Amino acid sequence: MTVRLGLLGAGRIGKVHARAIAANPGAKLVAVADAFADAAAELAASSDAEVRSADAILAAGDIDAVLITTPTDLHATMIERAARAKKAIFCEKPIDLDVARVRNCLAVVASENAKLMVGFNRRFDPNFVEVRRQIDEGAIGKVEMVSIVSRDPGPPPADYIKRSGGLFRDMTIHDFDMARFLLGEEPATVYASASVLVDPEIGELGDYDSASVVLTTKSGRIAQISNSRRASYGYDQRIEVHGSKGLVSAENLRATNIEIANGDGYRREPLLNFFMTRYTEAYRAEIAAFIAAVERGGPITPSGDDGLKALVLADAALRSAKEKRVVHLEE
Amino acid sequence: MTVRLGLLGAGRIGKVHARAIAANPGAKLVAVADAFADAAAELAASSDAEVRSADAILAAGDIDAVLITTPTDLHATMIERAARAKKAIFCEKPIDLDVARVRNCLAVVASENAKLMVGFNRRFDPNFVEVRRQIDEGAIGKVEMVSIVSRDPGPPPADYIKRSGGLFRDMTIHDFDMARFLLGEEPATVYASASVLVDPEIGELGDYDSASVVLTTKSGRIAQISNSRRASYGYDQRIEVHGSKGLVSAENLRATNIEIANGDGYRREPLLNFFMTRYTEAYRAEIAAFIAAVERGGPITPSGDDGLKALVLADAALRSAKEKRVVHLEE
Amino acid sequence: MTVRLGLLGAGRIGKVHARAIAANPGAKLVAVADAFADAAAELAASSDAEVRSADAILAAGDIDAVLITTPTDLHATMIERAARAKKAIFCEKPIDLDVARVRNCLAVVASENAKLMVGFNRRFDPNFVEVRRQIDEGAIGKVEMVSIVSRDPGPPPADYIKRSGGLFRDMTIHDFDMARFLLGEEPATVYASASVLVDPEIGELGDYDSASVVLTTKSGRIAQISNSRRASYGYDQRIEVHGSKGLVSAENLRATNIEIANGDGYRREPLLNFFMTRYTEAYRAEIAAFIAAVERGGPITPSGDDGLKALVLADAALRSAKEKRVVHLEE
Amino acid sequence: MTVRLGLLGAGRIGKVHARAIAANPGAKLVAVADAFADAAAELAASSDAEVRSADAILAAGDIDAVLITTPTDLHATMIERAARAKKAIFCEKPIDLDVARVRNCLAVVASENAKLMVGFNRRFDPNFVEVRRQIDEGAIGKVEMVSIVSRDPGPPPADYIKRSGGLFRDMTIHDFDMARFLLGEEPATVYASASVLVDPEIGELGDYDSASVVLTTKSGRIAQISNSRRASYGYDQRIEVHGSKGLVSAENLRATNIEIANGDGYRREPLLNFFMTRYTEAYRAEIAAFIAAVERGGPITPSGDDGLKALVLADAALRSAKEKRVVHLEE
Repeated sequence: MTVRLGLLGAGRIGKVHARAIAANPGAKLVAVADAFADAAAELAASSDAEVRSADAILAAGDIDAVLITTPTDLHATMIERAARAKKAIFCEKPIDLDVARVRNCLAVVASENAKLMVGFNRRFDPNFVEVRRQIDEGAIGKVEMVSIVSRDPGPPPADYIKRSGGLFRDMTIHDFDMARFLLGEEPATVYASASVLVDPEIGELGDYDSASVVLTTKSGRIAQISNSRRASYGYDQRIEVHGSKGLVSAENLRATNIEIANGDGYRREPLLNFFMTRYTEAYRAEIAAFIAAVERGGPITPSGDDGLKALVLADAALRSAKEKRVVHLEE
Repeated sequence: MTVRLGLLGAGRIGKVHARAIAANPGAKLVAVADAFADAAAELAASSDAEVRSADAILAAGDIDAVLITTPTDLHATMIERAARAKKAIFCEKPIDLDVARVRNCLAVVASENAKLMVGFNRRFDPNFVEVRRQIDEGAIGKVEMVSIVSRDPGPPPADYIKRSGGLFRDMTIHDFDMARFLLGEEPATVYASASVLVDPEIGELGDYDSASVVLTTKSGRIAQISNSRRASYGYDQRIEVHGSKGLVSAENLRATNIEIANGDGYRREPLLNFFMTRYTEAYRAEIAAFIAAVERGGPITPSGDDGLKALVLADAALRSAKEKRVVHLEE
Repeated sequence: MTVRLGLLGAGRIGKVHARAIAANPGAKLVAVADAFADAAAELAASSDAEVRSADAILAAGDIDAVLITTPTDLHATMIERAARAKKAIFCEKPIDLDVARVRNCLAVVASENAKLMVGFNRRFDPNFVEVRRQIDEGAIGKVEMVSIVSRDPGPPPADYIKRSGGLFRDMTIHDFDMARFLLGEEPATVYASASVLVDPEIGELGDYDSASVVLTTKSGRIAQISNSRRASYGYDQRIEVHGSKGLVSAENLRATNIEIANGDGYRREPLLNFFMTRYTEAYRAEIAAFIAAVERGGPITPSGDDGLKALVLADAALRSAKEKRVVHLEE
Repeated sequence: MTVRLGLLGAGRIGKVHARAIAANPGAKLVAVADAFADAAAELAASSDAEVRSADAILAAGDIDAVLITTPTDLHATMIERAARAKKAIFCEKPIDLDVARVRNCLAVVASENAKLMVGFNRRFDPNFVEVRRQIDEGAIGKVEMVSIVSRDPGPPPADYIKRSGGLFRDMTIHDFDMARFLLGEEPATVYASASVLVDPEIGELGDYDSASVVLTTKSGRIAQISNSRRASYGYDQRIEVHGSKGLVSAENLRATNIEIANGDGYRREPLLNFFMTRYTEAYRAEIAAFIAAVERGGPITPSGDDGLKALVLADAALRSAKEKRVVHLEE
């Protein structure tokens, strides 16, 4: 069976997914929709797909599943419409920036018994997958402490910051999901120390650009997250899990593994510094997993609930940073 | 313009190139030929191409260039036929195992003024490309010494060994090309010490499985090659260039960059251990370079002459190993 | 001038310092005191020094400075006595487990105008010294975030735990000092999440064995500390400082730099797993710095105040962990 | 028992050994001799030893063993005199630059039944010791290929070159010994390609500054050596042994393990660039091994024969390079 897909949103990330679909022998991109007709037309042409309206895609009999890559404020509505249209759904994170809205949306998904996958691409990075697999195989014994370093190469434009929901909902949300993925137990408390160290304008917009977050589970497992909106040396994405019997870590990625030595020392190049390049494999594997799940039927992860839980952690972190206190998730 | 291609040979490496063509927006695989009808049909189907005979491909008006991925003993004849048919030609290494035959073949290519590229894929590996680029930019000053470690994960079957032309013509030939690519000057003498350390059967077939080769240029630049038909830890492919101002090196590749630490120490996984996986990017870039050269016109590298020169070095190495003496290339 | 030294305490760490003195051409160990006569006699013999009582050492005219390496509960009293005896003083950390007692002790030191150095050996580790030097030279711009991983190879015996003052005062205190050394600004708030994950007996003794601590300065600089009383792979001691222009990090140390590769992968040995071996160079440099400071006159670091400030942070961390809240240091 | 030592030669390397003796509880440096009275006096003073003439040291009843650290041209004579005086002998490499002279000298040593150790310090480097130990424990199976990279930070002065015996006898001789130490079988043939790439003046003196040497044993084991008199990035000292079951390698050493990352990449410092710093531990362990062997009695390595065999390889390499041919050691 070939999974027939519709793409709602022909922007940057939509294109990434279109390429992943093209490379996947089990799927076919049937139609693309976008508010900008040119964007839709261009992507449709290069993908050998049709341009249709979002309405037409949702109503189509020749489309099994949709990928929602619209602006964030349309995510929840589109999910609900697609759920009612009996399409399987892949939606980029976040479902919405508002927890209540997410809960409503997931209620619709549940009542329609729809299949929803949320785009936490990092879970599909081959390195992080291998970390998880090693944990599952017992290589490090019982998980005790998770450390995540997650720093962007540089801050996004002010305009993006404004609509982003802030550092925790926009950037750390990936790390919250990764922490949950690795901890094997839900966090019970959140502490976030957040600062404006990179760019005062970010502070003027009411946001932070640097943060350290500590999540603690009921049994005492601890996850540490270190964030910055700027890393001069590239896109810094490391994880490390300390267990009762060992430590597993995933290092950063570079374009090449060249080293140059001279009187100044030994030098390797900076890190891959763009999230789409750094996570190329992850995006491909993510879409492949979605396609496989649609074909196979059954549950799908990361689920809508994973999306919700990461957002709840983000909100708790924001409260913690603002009120300079520990936030208990049961509050 | 789209470059229209015919593929002569639907075996393992033919499939690799077909995938590279599919991923290249500037090219189209039009037809596939293979002595095994099933192989041709299968690859044609998955590539959206036609099955044609080799004769038909060479005679076709809708094909600009051919890729020769037949068994080695057909290479030279196919190159000559394609040259006469005015097709641009990509041929897997080696052109032939016999130097005289190669010279005849290249004479035909020259007289037909045909475009010929020889498949030394490693020149297109992103790491080795970057090594060459750093040298060209002066990062290490004048090249003095090149070190190449090139070890296969395990020996090929006896049957392959028999038809291979032996260690130097089959395996080291890539390293001879890489040494020439990096030295920036032609070797004047060759010394090879070769042994049977891995598998006595290889010795019984008159071949070697382990070797150390030293190439020296007229001005005294030196290249060292270390070969083995078996590396328990994966496909070992390293290069290092020592220059007057510095050293540049390219390390091996792994599937992930995970490290696991416990009481036994810190462990990373073995190397990628299959040449097609290790050189995936190189094969893709190689075919892209061929397609671009066909479209652009003008010279193309690695050329037929590069193929010849590497083979001459292989022959010299074999003579050196057999006669336990230094071989001067002007002999 | 040769600095003449008396050693108060001939235990494990006393021996380390005696060796450091022997290797230092600017100093001479004159006398050793210990409650255990045999221990004093043995160390005196191997150090070419005399056995004297602590009283005699403090009263001696031929001794310029004392090293206090007694059990912790004698530190403060010995410091006060030595200060009154006009000796320069090196004292192992901590001055005392009780902040009020430390303050009293330091008041005596101040009123006697005595020279006091506290034994935070890690400040003298060549790697960490180099990290600090790179920061001072501007290699990473303005310091923003400090990360310290500090994990012991295995938990100490229950008996030690009982008298240790607990995880924060005994172990993390070194990390608090290192954080202050690297942050370049005093912490304003402390948050500690602490657990019992390694050994339930530690919990029964009212202590923790695993912790994550976040220190935040007034200007928003952040330090993260990750502690465990057990690391299966050795004594894990890493620091990393993220600044506006770059990142500087210090990796762990091993006895050799051997790597073994085979079908299981590439393996390096575990870390040096004993603090005295890991910090051999640091102990040597620490004593050399003390001797140089005594000879030179003038201020000396880490000072008594550094000892106090680290203890205050430890107390705050303990309160934070117990009360599950953020502690403001001005409270 | 304390081994009582006399030192013949108070130069740079003599001082290194004096320090090693001072740090060794099983030995005492009794007397120092040097043609330069000031040098002898200074080292004697700092070592708490007497100044004596070489004659007096050889005749002394209170001296068990001598260390010969004179200029090279006195080595053989001093060894013979010490052998006749019934002293145990440690002599810096080489015994002499002339093979015939070495043979005569070793004949005297044998007839006097004297104990002689030759100063191939690298055999005592903790990393190389561990490589050998891993081989002995079977970690890599049967040894097949040894690779040695050995490059000095910069060329010595012309004056030194003149008296050095040339690249192979002065520098590569250490690598010949290391190759023998690791191969586990004597080389049967030698090939050396040598050039003048670093400094034309070295060529004018009749010497080489760059070389690649291949040693082959009877059973086909191969050792490769890469030499240069200049490495811009420090003192490059690496070994790698490829066996039937794995690979073991020893990496270079640095003063610290700091890494600095910024927009230019990730940078580690250059290598330790002075042989005495790089091999500090090796020199200490070497003298400790000599002292232990004197105390224990019995055989001692590296022996005079090890010194001879390395020199024979050096001579063969020189002949190979000059005559551009393979040299068989049985010639």
